Amino acid sequence: MKIIRDPIHGYIEIEDKILPIISTEIFQRLRYISQTGLAYLVYPGMTHTRFEHSLGVMHLAKELTKYVKLNSEEFSDVSFIDNDFLDLISLAGLLHDIGHLPFSHTFENVLSLAKEIYGLSVEYYGKKTHVIFGNKIIDQYLSNYLDKFSKRYDTVNFVQRVISSTPKTKEERFASLIISNAIDADRGDYLLRDSYFAGVGYGNFDIERLKRSLIYVDDKLIVLKKAIPVIEQFLLARMYMYETVYFHSVVGLYNAILSHAIVKLIKKSSIPQISPENYLKLTDFLILSKLEEAGKEFYEAVIYRKGFKRIKKDIIGNCYEYMEKRRSEINRVMRETEGLVIYHDFYDVPYSEDEIFVYYDDEIKPLSSVSSIVSSLKSIKKGIIGYHEKAENEVSKLTKLLEECQF
Amino acid sequence: MKIIRDPIHGYIEIEDKILPIISTEIFQRLRYISQTGLAYLVYPGMTHTRFEHSLGVMHLAKELTKYVKLNSEEFSDVSFIDNDFLDLISLAGLLHDIGHLPFSHTFENVLSLAKEIYGLSVEYYGKKTHVIFGNKIIDQYLSNYLDKFSKRYDTVNFVQRVISSTPKTKEERFASLIISNAIDADRGDYLLRDSYFAGVGYGNFDIERLKRSLIYVDDKLIVLKKAIPVIEQFLLARMYMYETVYFHSVVGLYNAILSHAIVKLIKKSSIPQISPENYLKLTDFLILSKLEEAGKEFYEAVIYRKGFKRIKKDIIGNCYEYMEKRRSEINRVMRETEGLVIYHDFYDVPYSEDEIFVYYDDEIKPLSSVSSIVSSLKSIKKGIIGYHEKAENEVSKLTKLLEECQF
Amino acid sequence: MKIIRDPIHGYIEIEDKILPIISTEIFQRLRYISQTGLAYLVYPGMTHTRFEHSLGVMHLAKELTKYVKLNSEEFSDVSFIDNDFLDLISLAGLLHDIGHLPFSHTFENVLSLAKEIYGLSVEYYGKKTHVIFGNKIIDQYLSNYLDKFSKRYDTVNFVQRVISSTPKTKEERFASLIISNAIDADRGDYLLRDSYFAGVGYGNFDIERLKRSLIYVDDKLIVLKKAIPVIEQFLLARMYMYETVYFHSVVGLYNAILSHAIVKLIKKSSIPQISPENYLKLTDFLILSKLEEAGKEFYEAVIYRKGFKRIKKDIIGNCYEYMEKRRSEINRVMRETEGLVIYHDFYDVPYSEDEIFVYYDDEIKPLSSVSSIVSSLKSIKKGIIGYHEKAENEVSKLTKLLEECQF
Amino acid sequence: MKIIRDPIHGYIEIEDKILPIISTEIFQRLRYISQTGLAYLVYPGMTHTRFEHSLGVMHLAKELTKYVKLNSEEFSDVSFIDNDFLDLISLAGLLHDIGHLPFSHTFENVLSLAKEIYGLSVEYYGKKTHVIFGNKIIDQYLSNYLDKFSKRYDTVNFVQRVISSTPKTKEERFASLIISNAIDADRGDYLLRDSYFAGVGYGNFDIERLKRSLIYVDDKLIVLKKAIPVIEQFLLARMYMYETVYFHSVVGLYNAILSHAIVKLIKKSSIPQISPENYLKLTDFLILSKLEEAGKEFYEAVIYRKGFKRIKKDIIGNCYEYMEKRRSEINRVMRETEGLVIYHDFYDVPYSEDEIFVYYDDEIKPLSSVSSIVSSLKSIKKGIIGYHEKAENEVSKLTKLLEECQF
Repeated sequence: MKIIRDPIHGYIEIEDKILPIISTEIFQRLRYISQTGLAYLVYPGMTHTRFEHSLGVMHLAKELTKYVKLNSEEFSDVSFIDNDFLDLISLAGLLHDIGHLPFSHTFENVLSLAKEIYGLSVEYYGKKTHVIFGNKIIDQYLSNYLDKFSKRYDTVNFVQRVISSTPKTKEERFASLIISNAIDADRGDYLLRDSYFAGVGYGNFDIERLKRSLIYVDDKLIVLKKAIPVIEQFLLARMYMYETVYFHSVVGLYNAILSHAIVKLIKKSSIPQISPENYLKLTDFLILSKLEEAGKEFYEAVIYRKGFKRIKKDIIGNCYEYMEKRRSEINRVMRETEGLVIYHDFYDVPYSEDEIFVYYDDEIKPLSSVSSIVSSLKSIKKGIIGYHEKAENEVSKLTKLLEECQF
Repeated sequence: MKIIRDPIHGYIEIEDKILPIISTEIFQRLRYISQTGLAYLVYPGMTHTRFEHSLGVMHLAKELTKYVKLNSEEFSDVSFIDNDFLDLISLAGLLHDIGHLPFSHTFENVLSLAKEIYGLSVEYYGKKTHVIFGNKIIDQYLSNYLDKFSKRYDTVNFVQRVISSTPKTKEERFASLIISNAIDADRGDYLLRDSYFAGVGYGNFDIERLKRSLIYVDDKLIVLKKAIPVIEQFLLARMYMYETVYFHSVVGLYNAILSHAIVKLIKKSSIPQISPENYLKLTDFLILSKLEEAGKEFYEAVIYRKGFKRIKKDIIGNCYEYMEKRRSEINRVMRETEGLVIYHDFYDVPYSEDEIFVYYDDEIKPLSSVSSIVSSLKSIKKGIIGYHEKAENEVSKLTKLLEECQF
Repeated sequence: MKIIRDPIHGYIEIEDKILPIISTEIFQRLRYISQTGLAYLVYPGMTHTRFEHSLGVMHLAKELTKYVKLNSEEFSDVSFIDNDFLDLISLAGLLHDIGHLPFSHTFENVLSLAKEIYGLSVEYYGKKTHVIFGNKIIDQYLSNYLDKFSKRYDTVNFVQRVISSTPKTKEERFASLIISNAIDADRGDYLLRDSYFAGVGYGNFDIERLKRSLIYVDDKLIVLKKAIPVIEQFLLARMYMYETVYFHSVVGLYNAILSHAIVKLIKKSSIPQISPENYLKLTDFLILSKLEEAGKEFYEAVIYRKGFKRIKKDIIGNCYEYMEKRRSEINRVMRETEGLVIYHDFYDVPYSEDEIFVYYDDEIKPLSSVSSIVSSLKSIKKGIIGYHEKAENEVSKLTKLLEECQF
Repeated sequence: MKIIRDPIHGYIEIEDKILPIISTEIFQRLRYISQTGLAYLVYPGMTHTRFEHSLGVMHLAKELTKYVKLNSEEFSDVSFIDNDFLDLISLAGLLHDIGHLPFSHTFENVLSLAKEIYGLSVEYYGKKTHVIFGNKIIDQYLSNYLDKFSKRYDTVNFVQRVISSTPKTKEERFASLIISNAIDADRGDYLLRDSYFAGVGYGNFDIERLKRSLIYVDDKLIVLKKAIPVIEQFLLARMYMYETVYFHSVVGLYNAILSHAIVKLIKKSSIPQISPENYLKLTDFLILSKLEEAGKEFYEAVIYRKGFKRIKKDIIGNCYEYMEKRRSEINRVMRETEGLVIYHDFYDVPYSEDEIFVYYDDEIKPLSSVSSIVSSLKSIKKGIIGYHEKAENEVSKLTKLLEECQF
């Protein structure tokens, strides 16, 4: 067993079986994939990467599973949770983000822009993109490691189905709940980690209490009644991190600028084609070192925070809805200005009805029926307009659209 | 005034006068200079940069100065510490590391190797290299900003003399003590910051107590007697950070590998010449993106932690002294194997006699005369030997040298 | 200036003018008044007292005032905030809880029970009791100190009007807003402090951000729009501390048992009469040392957590409302069983409409109009039933009442 | 299993077997025994008690034992560490301080003064007093619980021999090392806990690293070489806590005043005789409530910090040695002034040679041979003189003694 120092979880213990997978080139590559895009331009501490987040999810997936076993013994048969299964769920946690491309979610935005605005032929599957790519990566780079991982499980299938939330067996369903769910090891780790590196308290929640609050009943992860405050705290933490960090208007502006820049690099073939074979090459430092080829404006914006401005007022409420309808005009402006005028929108639902259930006086109830806080969590929708100084005139094409709503 | 979120100091307030300097390209460039070289290969959280450290030193220099003024009023005339002076000392703190090259101190090692082993003609001035380069940078990029900074002070001269520890006036001497000294804003920030990002407790000390412990007497910064435990804690923190992080054998190995790789890039002119004009280009991501040109072995080592091994036993005591004497043979081996066999040594003195003084029952005494802990702080000296798998035979040229000491 | 180590605020600085007041017997007495009643029976760390909370409020009142001055300069005339005023507001913060009796709010419950259930003639003014007693204490013990405190202000009147929220002047109104308001130094300190000693994260909020978020406009403290998340966090922190700590059912049970016990001590004149003259005598240790005179059952319950049980299900919703209406029968049962059967209710409103205002796009709007979280904060109402083992039969007199609601 | 919130260890889990012992009156009594005497008069947060410390030691003893088992598997046979043994060692940790009297170590000082100065006939066994009393308490109050605790072990004997460091079997020796040793669960908990409540950083050390650093070899607990920095940090933490908190001159003064006061209460039989039968009565609040009977001077000193002064300069070096020799005259002054003039001395050795061993390149070496820091840890010796204002003349009887040394 190897141990690694981690600011969030103290020490992360790595099982001997898992160490070779961490040592592969494809996994080490995550050291050069920023966890939160260009958020460091606003929160300078946020230079952390998918590498440490992946280790954290591996660790937390195992921890949560151990506790769910302990907590559930009077409710269900959890005998399937043995050391083999713990190794497997750790591995699924470790690999859940293996498909991320440079600057993480920002690259998903790149692919979306490339396809929808610039009409390029790229693979894009919405928010699931990194998951689908992840499964290809596993086939391409990791299947020989995974094939010999477990005697009892078909590890490749297990991991792929778990991280793409398409479980087939009870064990896979369980692992899927632990790894990607409303309350899970992924969110658990990134909320704590991202807020630590940002230096903000918003993402904090009582992880020790959370561990002791989940039980496994009827093929579901259920929350104990007494833990409702912790769950509320968790969902609030997520909402605040979106509001103040992930969806910070300036963070969004620079991620959008970077996105347009990367599309240009793709168009000009300045970077290798986005395909599993080229994953080893696709790192943040590749993008940064090629950035000048996307144009001086983009290089200076991303590297020096220069040249671009933002219309200070965010676009919310009915203006947001209105802009939704004018998507094709907006896209045209971006295309015509080649990204010197930018509209970027943010959308997140912090909690979907009936996602989380509570064990409440011997009944299983949806959380929203017993928590007024949870039912008040607002979805976040906003748009921002940015433009390069050179495009001060062209930006009016976008702002004119706003005249028709109460901006 | 702008405020920036910082995990170490909470909020860092940026005066309006200072903001334009932070916004320059040459300062923003520090976002792409790793604070601690490749330490992140061992402590994954250590992806932080000189940018946030520089902001931290700016902040702490101002804080310490404010407190020294408060603490010293019964001992000295500190009326020269006014708002103008606080702005100036903040600025000197901000710019103290502006001369760092990619991967910070690792690049100083590059220049040393280039000169001494590979016989290249590069500028190298020992540990002062980044300071001397910093002053050139100020001349080249920042003098027009600094010229209009203060009405009372010649800001360029002030900052340059302070950061190179060559003060001429009382005010410059004071600023120099605050910014680079045995106990100063620079060390104060990096100990707290590096240990935060590493996730280790070793670098922690009671900064709030330290602020209340320094007085200015006879042109010196003196420690109050009751603060001896804090000062001990500070010096211990520094020693432990060297022992466990900065001089960690594996961290050192990879920094040494990277150093040889960069020398090759210099030799092949793969990167621009090291001169102030090219500073804007000289970033970590430039180096990383060129690394393949230094050879597959070096690329894979730095990016994937592959290929190199280390002779597990560190070289200390008389073996270390012995190796010192065989420097030319060692250098020859490194040169002949083109860096596939590496000897790397570490050396630090945590405390020099008579550096720190204590106000002790109305006398000023050297700290070492009143603290047994301080006099026991050991200097750290050790060497490591690393080699690429391909050079398994050649490494014996180095290990044979060790036969003559008790290794 | 003296400095005191405080786990919440680091160092608390005590002005020379204020030190003599802290050194009075009547203020030192707060060392022996538990901050949170018997909460330590559930959260063992909560042994902290009104003494350190009072120092904390002194500190925070000054801090908030300094920042409000800085933040408000472009909005209002805040020139009245000078060093004299800062001393005065610190003093008001220091003394805001000087009227607390043993076990703090639990003693207010004692007086309420004594009057309403046991028909004793005691002074009781609801939740304001400790404030009114505080003003008497100031007259009796502190007026000679306060008379010479300030040249510009009538300090006795200022402090008394501020802590009783009956300000007459603009300065008093301001101080009142800082010290007792929806968002204030009192709550600010106790949320952070109580959660620190309990070891729970619920009470935490971003105090540094809060300081930078309040402005003084139109005789009101207003929140900047960008600070809405911090204010939500603050109000949520308060709600969670009520839900999980202050209104914890077991904490409530023991505070109720103690309350009945103290009523008995009053009835039997085992403790001095509750009047300003006797305040110096009225400490937690007096009560604890007399407790046996209230009966073995009460002594063993409070000291050893023995003998009393709780009906596990809390009384909420329409059952709570129903019990409200049966108050006289409930009181009769408590009186007849001499406190061996207990009904204890909890009631708190975390946020009253229109208490907090936001500076929102140049308008001043009520917080509830722009924060869905805030409008969802629920008032907390619940009742518990406890009884001594000996009174297992008598408790049915209370539980029978519940048959008429859906318990 | 029950869980309790603890600020130091997060959650403390209490096994069902252990809960009844925690619920006994004799254990609950520890809630009313201050952990650090009157230290709260200087560090207001230090109102914590032996109750939570005892829970913490229970927890940490179990944690350390689990890790030692994991860490040692390649070195020794640790099969005796099973669940039964873990319960037993938890129990020994829980009960290690059950024999403490009011204000903990201060009461041991009371007994020493009573015997040596005032010539009373009391039981006193030096620093072991609370341990010997603890074993009597176990006989008197807990043997019936312990008798049925384990099928395999004679629990009473096991616990008594472990806490008095008189082990007979291998298992008892192991438990003794875990619970009271140079590096143990007791010190581990109190350093972290006392510094948390004081709000100082001095007592902090890397507990997670420590857990992973201890192995069991040859019937000894040995430290791994790589953990030397952690062990140094631990020993330094202890030394600093002594220097700045436990042996703080003002803390010492008030504990000494309280000690003399309690001797008077014993002399006047104001409190029950010190014997196991009376332990349930012997609480802090008993002492505080009787304090007036020891005289107004003592009551006012302890409760209000009034009346006593301290000669500002501490007595160290050869003056300390000199005072040692004049012990009988000093005692006479204290006796004659009935405690209005006080000499109080402090003595501690932070590290005894050959107490700790390191596993160093396959050899077992004494820590002092490989750590210069450890060999520089200084023993702390100092004396203070305090006196009541009324005894301003009498104090000269003590200060005159100092004329013969260089004071």
